[in-house]
Amino acid sequence: MSVRGVAVLLRMSTLFLRTLREDPADAEVPSHKLLARGGYVRRAAPGVYSWLPLGKIVLENVANVVREEMNRIGGQEVLLPALLPREYYEATGRWTEYGDSLFRIVDRKGADYLLGPTHEELFTLLVKGEYSSYKDFPVILYQIQEKFRDEARPRAGILRGREFHMKDAYSFDIDDEGLQRSYELHRDAYIRIFDRLGLNYVVVAATSGAMGGSASEEFLAEADTGEDTFVRSTGSDYAANVEAVRTPVPPARPVEGRPEAQVHHTPDTPTIETLVDFLNGAGLRGADERPRTFTAADTLKNVLVKIRRPGETEWEVLGIGVPGDREVDMKRLEASLEPAEVELLEEADFAANPFLVKGYVGPRALLDNKLRYLVDPRVVEGTAWVTGADRPDHHVVDLVCGRDFTPDGTIEAAEVRDGDPSPDGRGTLYTARGIEIGHVFQLGRKYTDTFGFDALGPDGKPKRVTMGSYGIGVSRVVAAIVEQSHDDKGVVWPREVAPADVHVVGTGKGEQIEVALRIAEELAARGVRVIVDDRKGVSPGVKFTDAELLGVPTGVIVGKGLASGVVELRDRAGGEREEIPVDTVVEKVAAIVKDA
Amino acid sequence: MSVRGVAVLLRMSTLFLRTLREDPADAEVPSHKLLARGGYVRRAAPGVYSWLPLGKIVLENVANVVREEMNRIGGQEVLLPALLPREYYEATGRWTEYGDSLFRIVDRKGADYLLGPTHEELFTLLVKGEYSSYKDFPVILYQIQEKFRDEARPRAGILRGREFHMKDAYSFDIDDEGLQRSYELHRDAYIRIFDRLGLNYVVVAATSGAMGGSASEEFLAEADTGEDTFVRSTGSDYAANVEAVRTPVPPARPVEGRPEAQVHHTPDTPTIETLVDFLNGAGLRGADERPRTFTAADTLKNVLVKIRRPGETEWEVLGIGVPGDREVDMKRLEASLEPAEVELLEEADFAANPFLVKGYVGPRALLDNKLRYLVDPRVVEGTAWVTGADRPDHHVVDLVCGRDFTPDGTIEAAEVRDGDPSPDGRGTLYTARGIEIGHVFQLGRKYTDTFGFDALGPDGKPKRVTMGSYGIGVSRVVAAIVEQSHDDKGVVWPREVAPADVHVVGTGKGEQIEVALRIAEELAARGVRVIVDDRKGVSPGVKFTDAELLGVPTGVIVGKGLASGVVELRDRAGGEREEIPVDTVVEKVAAIVKDA
Repeated sequence: MSVRGVAVLLRMSTLFLRTLREDPADAEVPSHKLLARGGYVRRAAPGVYSWLPLGKIVLENVANVVREEMNRIGGQEVLLPALLPREYYEATGRWTEYGDSLFRIVDRKGADYLLGPTHEELFTLLVKGEYSSYKDFPVILYQIQEKFRDEARPRAGILRGREFHMKDAYSFDIDDEGLQRSYELHRDAYIRIFDRLGLNYVVVAATSGAMGGSASEEFLAEADTGEDTFVRSTGSDYAANVEAVRTPVPPARPVEGRPEAQVHHTPDTPTIETLVDFLNGAGLRGADERPRTFTAADTLKNVLVKIRRPGETEWEVLGIGVPGDREVDMKRLEASLEPAEVELLEEADFAANPFLVKGYVGPRALLDNKLRYLVDPRVVEGTAWVTGADRPDHHVVDLVCGRDFTPDGTIEAAEVRDGDPSPDGRGTLYTARGIEIGHVFQLGRKYTDTFGFDALGPDGKPKRVTMGSYGIGVSRVVAAIVEQSHDDKGVVWPREVAPADVHVVGTGKGEQIEVALRIAEELAARGVRVIVDDRKGVSPGVKFTDAELLGVPTGVIVGKGLASGVVELRDRAGGEREEIPVDTVVEKVAAIVKDA
Repeated sequence: MSVRGVAVLLRMSTLFLRTLREDPADAEVPSHKLLARGGYVRRAAPGVYSWLPLGKIVLENVANVVREEMNRIGGQEVLLPALLPREYYEATGRWTEYGDSLFRIVDRKGADYLLGPTHEELFTLLVKGEYSSYKDFPVILYQIQEKFRDEARPRAGILRGREFHMKDAYSFDIDDEGLQRSYELHRDAYIRIFDRLGLNYVVVAATSGAMGGSASEEFLAEADTGEDTFVRSTGSDYAANVEAVRTPVPPARPVEGRPEAQVHHTPDTPTIETLVDFLNGAGLRGADERPRTFTAADTLKNVLVKIRRPGETEWEVLGIGVPGDREVDMKRLEASLEPAEVELLEEADFAANPFLVKGYVGPRALLDNKLRYLVDPRVVEGTAWVTGADRPDHHVVDLVCGRDFTPDGTIEAAEVRDGDPSPDGRGTLYTARGIEIGHVFQLGRKYTDTFGFDALGPDGKPKRVTMGSYGIGVSRVVAAIVEQSHDDKGVVWPREVAPADVHVVGTGKGEQIEVALRIAEELAARGVRVIVDDRKGVSPGVKFTDAELLGVPTGVIVGKGLASGVVELRDRAGGEREEIPVDTVVEKVAAIVKDA
């Protein structure tokens, strides 16, 4: 029995399904273990999976929720190819930027192609080919499609695969207000989608990744097994990617009356810790003649990096100053400097810039030699620091920002720590882990600039079109749901995505299997999606174990009770069991499904 | 409005659709022209297309018909990856056999992958991984998926693309009878599918292509623009691929009393034509002393080829004898010798076999030197031939098969010509052209042998599993439908695949557009799929032209007549037009759709 190609009655006796009692050897996270054991997916190659019948149904259920909500906001479904010519990605620089993550192909004629990781380029060109007037906008297009990324470390089953299913949508607007509206529409649609899918998630401010652009938020499903770290506040709804956390800026302090900067000989102080110890033992005294004590937070650590912007060949050396009690978080630093490449200085770079005294670099040498110097936002005017004196074995104390040095700007490069104040001023931050399931992103004009996509404005003048891109990892969502919704017996599917509404199990040597089949058929005739365990010669225990592993929301057990006219109703999530008369079961289950 | 992710009300004012008045420059066939002009598809790269909103709907409609009929025969839908490791295709030899037609990829770790052209290997391994007992069989699995083939000459739009949509199904059975049943199930399902899709098609006996195996039939949509040539009979339903035509074998004749074979000096007879002229002028007489006349059909032409079987390094030289009035059809010859490679002899081969006298090769030299000699089925015992005498400038006359030479067997290598007798004995053959839209194929044990896929039989002994594979070109079917169903104004969709059931057009400056929208909404509420042309400032002529180009089966024109309370009902296929009261239109259209 099937409706628009969707099977509504599945018989275990013929279903292509063999459950496993053991976790696959390479499985580390619950979703990988349970989706494999439940026969939802099988591995075909590293990071590449086959979806078996039940898995395909679940995947399609998720896709259909996405479709319905995308259609609701006026999204129009299209389907673009996976095989894309190099030239489009060359034009935007992504052919190079994606590096080894791109699967590349040379065709029989020697032309370069790639397998699409996302489709900004082709969508821009597609819409440019059709639309030319402000009257044509806005438009939202989306597709649900296999995507390909050659991940360095495919892991966690379908959580991070190399071939995966994604919904990618693109909005095109004539002005910034339009983009903002399209962005809000998507943001709202995503909230409806993830709510319908029963996911616990947070929306976090995000940085842009390799795509360029401005406003961007990620939807993270909360899960200890997630790859993404984010921070939340103890005192508010604030949540953000670590890369997106903006350090609260302390007030500036008066410069007047601060002690003069003094250079000290500080032998054997290769680390912040040894430097602090040395200073605390050096007998330095304050204006009040009392002994001064120093902590790592009083020191200013200068880290030297070099950056190269896309399309340029020259590297620029950059000094990054952060309080000595914090490490530089390279991911935060890189996010701040995007889309430039970032590398730490090598010996040769120091040799080429002899004024940089390794281990003792201070702001002076940088600024005197016209190298840019960017500091942590906590380094405000009037703060005094212990830092390198640009001479071996020497540090300077009381170097005051705004008096003795003026940085070229600030940068978010220092690590974020549990207990840091929340940027919204309420509570403190703590870290949590999540799975990125969605991403909404104001691309702006990056792609329309590249391809010169203008539309005629109401004033008859060309206006550059502006874009948003919006992704949902459809296959990853399946895994994220399992990460959040399982127990030690198996998956516990939310009804909207479950492979069936009800799992009818016939056990025993009498007419139980026939009755189970009859119940299944009556339910299916009412549009209830059913799996029926009609296997002969399989023990009740195995059937119950399989039913729990598969995780269909409602169970009906047609067993010994049948002799006295009852069947058992089971709720997978809550575990409740109830005996009901067999002649009421169809009505009752249909009502449960309808009310859900 | 959408149902399970399918939009049922499309508004032209916002639909991502721009029709074209001109055919694309590279379009040669009607489906390519009309699908592009109607905004169903757009070209992204050679042989690579994007499906725009209406095209995506049509594609999905075809896919859903396929799904329903596959589910009806017990097929279970799965989804395997496109990205496949080389090792599986290496094992079956297809990594090499497919040659340049395979898109190949090297991943970041240097491992070889390919993009699946079909998935026999992975399906075999998948089922082998799950099933192990005769009780598990039969099973039918299918998927609908993008496939990739690097065609040497992508052409005709989506008729022959490099990335295309295909339904591929695989049956697994424990014995030949099971395979035969699975094959018949698919054959019947295909007939239902193509009937539902409104296609004119023939089922032709086919050869195997590169896949190996035995029984095989192709479903060809009749179309002058088709790439596949096939033959049909004037007197019966017989239809076959040219490669699959079996030549009727004439009765053997008595050998006794035939004249002795005689060698003649035949100078300057490099061709069959010159040889026949020479003989007719040579004054040869029969037993009755009357002058003998010869035609090309009396001569036996021997063509020399060499073949190499998969996995072998040695070439075998082979003589092929066909009546001199027919050419050797290399495609038929290759099909007969599959899976061996076939090449014509080169100079070096003649040099290595000096007994082969180029232009004068006869059966004798071949047989005396232990080279295999295969002849056309018309060369039966008792037939007398003029053929090469294995000496320069000499031919032998009256060389009688079964007396003077005994071939090693017969082979289908000669061309098939219009007027040849039909193999079923009824009528004569003529050639026609078609588009291959489906293929059913008894693979047998080629793949299960490679991967050692046995199941435990009822007797406790391992039995080798046997397979069938069954393809439908889903995207190609869309084009084939258009090839068969269009007129000079545009596409004429069968209702089952049309992007909508009804196209409601509002024209005029009054309330027509509002009324059109209201009608559209009422129809959609009844589950009728609607496109409504609610564009303002677009002329009636443009709207009518677009509606005809798009080809939705039923049209409703809300125009001038609205003032007198009528709208026009149009039938796209038949062209009938009828004025009906506006307040009956919803009822009437709903009835038309329901009855269809």
